[in-house]
Amino acid sequence: MAEPAREERIARLRLMRSATIGPVTYWQLVRRFGSAGAALEAVPALAARGGGRMPTLTSRDAAEREMERVAALGARHLFRGDPDYPRLLAEVESAPPALIARGRLELLELPSIAMVGARNASAAACRFARQLAQGLGAAGAVVVSGLARGIDTAAHDGSLESGTIAVVAGGIDIFYPPENADRQRTIGERGLLLSEQPPGLEPRARHFPSRNRIIAGLTSGTVVVEAAPKSGSLITARHAAEFGRDVMAVPGSPLDPRAQGCNLLIRDGAILVQNAADVMETIRPFDVRPVAEEGDGYSAEPPSDIAKAARQGVIDLLSPTPVAIDEIVRQSGLAPAVVQTVLLELELAGRLERHAGGRVSL
Amino acid sequence: MAEPAREERIARLRLMRSATIGPVTYWQLVRRFGSAGAALEAVPALAARGGGRMPTLTSRDAAEREMERVAALGARHLFRGDPDYPRLLAEVESAPPALIARGRLELLELPSIAMVGARNASAAACRFARQLAQGLGAAGAVVVSGLARGIDTAAHDGSLESGTIAVVAGGIDIFYPPENADRQRTIGERGLLLSEQPPGLEPRARHFPSRNRIIAGLTSGTVVVEAAPKSGSLITARHAAEFGRDVMAVPGSPLDPRAQGCNLLIRDGAILVQNAADVMETIRPFDVRPVAEEGDGYSAEPPSDIAKAARQGVIDLLSPTPVAIDEIVRQSGLAPAVVQTVLLELELAGRLERHAGGRVSL
Repeated sequence: MAEPAREERIARLRLMRSATIGPVTYWQLVRRFGSAGAALEAVPALAARGGGRMPTLTSRDAAEREMERVAALGARHLFRGDPDYPRLLAEVESAPPALIARGRLELLELPSIAMVGARNASAAACRFARQLAQGLGAAGAVVVSGLARGIDTAAHDGSLESGTIAVVAGGIDIFYPPENADRQRTIGERGLLLSEQPPGLEPRARHFPSRNRIIAGLTSGTVVVEAAPKSGSLITARHAAEFGRDVMAVPGSPLDPRAQGCNLLIRDGAILVQNAADVMETIRPFDVRPVAEEGDGYSAEPPSDIAKAARQGVIDLLSPTPVAIDEIVRQSGLAPAVVQTVLLELELAGRLERHAGGRVSL
Repeated sequence: MAEPAREERIARLRLMRSATIGPVTYWQLVRRFGSAGAALEAVPALAARGGGRMPTLTSRDAAEREMERVAALGARHLFRGDPDYPRLLAEVESAPPALIARGRLELLELPSIAMVGARNASAAACRFARQLAQGLGAAGAVVVSGLARGIDTAAHDGSLESGTIAVVAGGIDIFYPPENADRQRTIGERGLLLSEQPPGLEPRARHFPSRNRIIAGLTSGTVVVEAAPKSGSLITARHAAEFGRDVMAVPGSPLDPRAQGCNLLIRDGAILVQNAADVMETIRPFDVRPVAEEGDGYSAEPPSDIAKAARQGVIDLLSPTPVAIDEIVRQSGLAPAVVQTVLLELELAGRLERHAGGRVSL
């Protein structure tokens, strides 16, 4: 696919930055209508059928400002569906509609490993992480992390020479944590800096788990080094498992509280790794499949008009408790494409929420 | 089965203490001939057919002396096949023909866990092992170990009140290591002391791996606490895996050389455990099957006379390289019972060696 024309890129930004349109919905719309431009035009009618307010679409002006600002930062958009979009990430259902990237894009072509861990990691664990990252680099893998304090920082430092990718939770021009400002600038030149958020966006609590899914989705596997139970690192690990990627963890003594998260992961089936060789042995050969459209119920010609009864049937199966879309298909007896369309309309009408694992609720 | 009569017990001791008769051969002979007494009488003819020297059988006198000495030590023999023989151990092909036991035999009726580990374990690991043993005792499990320095000692100390079984490599009256002499005496009274060796036998290097198989065979699972790669603890773990028991290991930091054995075990599939609850969750419900005779190719009426051609056929398939008995059966086209008989004759003639995993060599 050629670089999309300016008009289509503006349409994509308008669609993806609209408040009620999440990554899954964005992608369904683009695939259903063939382009973001066509999807934008269809949204009002879809929302009306979903029985809600018209979603507030991002203005053309705002989209153009984002494009200019990204260019001014020496960065660019990588749009989902385009050839330069990271291949493994494209396989994830909730992949970001676009990433903003600054630095060496060619790093996205190499096998990559996520390394995550505690912000308050011990000095020994940070040294270990730095050496592990170095070893992974020597073995030909790019290291992906989140530029947080502690393990993330050590992972980037160890792999800066060989290839490091930092995915930040806010805009790529927002330096967080402040002490990593220089490191972030350096990675944007000698490594690769990625974000799904527009420039200028200050990261908030909800942006971090969202960022973690990108770290997991970009890579063949995630290595957790020293993490507490219920930490963000375990969220990244859970995403990796959901995406069918390898989950690896570095063990520690039962007497060390900072090892508990990793030990629990291993007990639950994560692969114990102690060095770069262990990691490289674990990850599958780098996945070279081309970006493929997975069947998700949308045919080339989606049902354009859905009977009122069918729509009500789907709505009746929904509640504030999240339920799997597969379950709705089974219980409604409707074609998957019909169910997906009704859900899309409801979401555009602001009446539906999407959850992890293909579940939805009112 | 009632307590075997004195004559049969003497016959069993004579057979099992004979140099060329290992545990597997012993058990095959007893099962084939129905009693050790009958087997003793048959040995000369079998050895002659195997084409070797008549094995030197232990004298009646030596067997009687062992019985007297065991009695004088306040101990007793537990013979394989009798109801007081440890149930899980009886399922192991190479189970000792008899154990010499001193102490609380009722401990053999409870669920049990083996705890093994490094002799030079760190103080922290020993404290951990003591607490783990205490926790297992509190959860209703007996702890089995080898009375070595380090982890073994800690395991016994932690479980002395609740129930501890020590399997020693030499005779039960030989105190090894010397600093554990008092501990060994105490366990022989308040716990249970076991050995497959006759009283007075000083343990040699080859007795330790042999002892380790008993520790693994007695228990539902083996927990390894801090062990170096290629250590005796890993032999116990390997035996446990071979016997279909659970293998568990306590993890440690990759930076701690003493954690390497455990981490490797976990990487190879052992279950990571951090506390008694993890262990109790892992082990299967205590196996309550009665001692069952497994089919091993011996029928009630074994072939009494084997054609010369068949015997030569088996011999031709043997070499100094160990080969699986199953493989010989397949390649020879002979009935398993015939192959087993020829092997038995060869072994009694001193011409055959048995190896782990049901393999044999010349």
